[in-house]
Amino acid sequence: MFTYKTTVRLFDTDAAGLLFFGNHFRIIHAAYEAYLESKGLGMGDIIRGGRLLLPIIHAEADYYEPMFVGDKLTVELTAEEPTTHSYSLNFALKNGEGRKVGAVRTVHVCLDNKTREKTPLPEKLREAIRALG
Amino acid sequence: MFTYKTTVRLFDTDAAGLLFFGNHFRIIHAAYEAYLESKGLGMGDIIRGGRLLLPIIHAEADYYEPMFVGDKLTVELTAEEPTTHSYSLNFALKNGEGRKVGAVRTVHVCLDNKTREKTPLPEKLREAIRALG
Amino acid sequence: MFTYKTTVRLFDTDAAGLLFFGNHFRIIHAAYEAYLESKGLGMGDIIRGGRLLLPIIHAEADYYEPMFVGDKLTVELTAEEPTTHSYSLNFALKNGEGRKVGAVRTVHVCLDNKTREKTPLPEKLREAIRALG
Amino acid sequence: MFTYKTTVRLFDTDAAGLLFFGNHFRIIHAAYEAYLESKGLGMGDIIRGGRLLLPIIHAEADYYEPMFVGDKLTVELTAEEPTTHSYSLNFALKNGEGRKVGAVRTVHVCLDNKTREKTPLPEKLREAIRALG
Repeated sequence: MFTYKTTVRLFDTDAAGLLFFGNHFRIIHAAYEAYLESKGLGMGDIIRGGRLLLPIIHAEADYYEPMFVGDKLTVELTAEEPTTHSYSLNFALKNGEGRKVGAVRTVHVCLDNKTREKTPLPEKLREAIRALG
Repeated sequence: MFTYKTTVRLFDTDAAGLLFFGNHFRIIHAAYEAYLESKGLGMGDIIRGGRLLLPIIHAEADYYEPMFVGDKLTVELTAEEPTTHSYSLNFALKNGEGRKVGAVRTVHVCLDNKTREKTPLPEKLREAIRALG
Repeated sequence: MFTYKTTVRLFDTDAAGLLFFGNHFRIIHAAYEAYLESKGLGMGDIIRGGRLLLPIIHAEADYYEPMFVGDKLTVELTAEEPTTHSYSLNFALKNGEGRKVGAVRTVHVCLDNKTREKTPLPEKLREAIRALG
Repeated sequence: MFTYKTTVRLFDTDAAGLLFFGNHFRIIHAAYEAYLESKGLGMGDIIRGGRLLLPIIHAEADYYEPMFVGDKLTVELTAEEPTTHSYSLNFALKNGEGRKVGAVRTVHVCLDNKTREKTPLPEKLREAIRALG
């Protein structure tokens, strides 16, 4: 499990006074990028490398409790066992009191950037995903 | 069915060159707001009215094809039969050639703003959702 | 002058109930992209062309009146006479009653993507900017 | 001076491969919110308190160097001496090697939420701004 801490900022909220539902996806993606970095797999390197694309093909979120500007969030990232060409990530969002206020799941696939065909996950990425199991 | 047209803008994309997956949720929410407006139910009026909250409790998206800056998008909004306290919306995203490039589903619940308890959908909103069935 | 119409959406606002100041820049950039498209200069084509970069080197905004979710905005785009390597755009934001609620100015420079040195504006782009004069 | 550290995330960038100019304003606002929190002045408390509005009436940014996904940013926040009803903040953005890659300035005014008239800065806020001088 990888743990990422953040704070709900004004621009994450909307005029209803709460965290806008679409911004949960931005928050969990920051956690995902921070995890990859911690494993020496920076998103910038992957993109500049230019060999692979790792698009998200499915995403879903459940919202249990509203979040306000200034609220402290802890994102807990775990993963299922990766397949040859894809991996799934689970993000639990917990508030400052440790209650689970939301959950997000994303499914990623590994494509060859030239052919846009599925290609096996690079070993270093596979290891990083398995380490979250 | 309600139809909403938009264009993928630079700030919707990311350094991988494609529409960022989390921004699909912003795009479909604009379509939803435009539909409510067309029925005389502006989001601003609902929020300033202050009696109701209509939070999203679940959202999910499937991504079939990448979208680039400048791509034309048509969002087709339909709805399932609403329950007493909630409604579900389905958004099909089609590109300029009419191919379905993505799909989003959102589940909304109607809460009393004071008690935060479930409360029946107002009749005007129920009618608007049913008109999408 | 080029005119672009839009609506303040929920995700443009923040928990203070108003359009978040940073999102004015997103709104005016959509107007800029729409103008370029209308002149056959799609942002996607410029980026995929890969020869030029047109970064913004200065931006500023003045905020005269608050904007709420659902408010109708008209963006009026004009330009100063371009220099050899750069151009400046002025955006007036008007509300549904025609009052100027904000103003944005951006300064763009034309760079060669390989050398990152200044390079003259392409003629088609220069013509498009002059047409806003 | 207050120092805030962050990382450029994928959703901060656009298809041109760089930090989108409008997102600098989001990044510096996070630094501003973090500073207020450190002084016991959470943005959520100010909004929920409901007595004051602190809108930004002017913002400007200069962009010296491009920023990429994964780049480390340090934001250095300083302030000019506040006036009775307003204050100005200066943000220097430095990259991982300490070079100044951008600068942002914002001007904030203190309004009574009911009358929308200017009202003096609360003493605690004035002290917090002066401490940045």
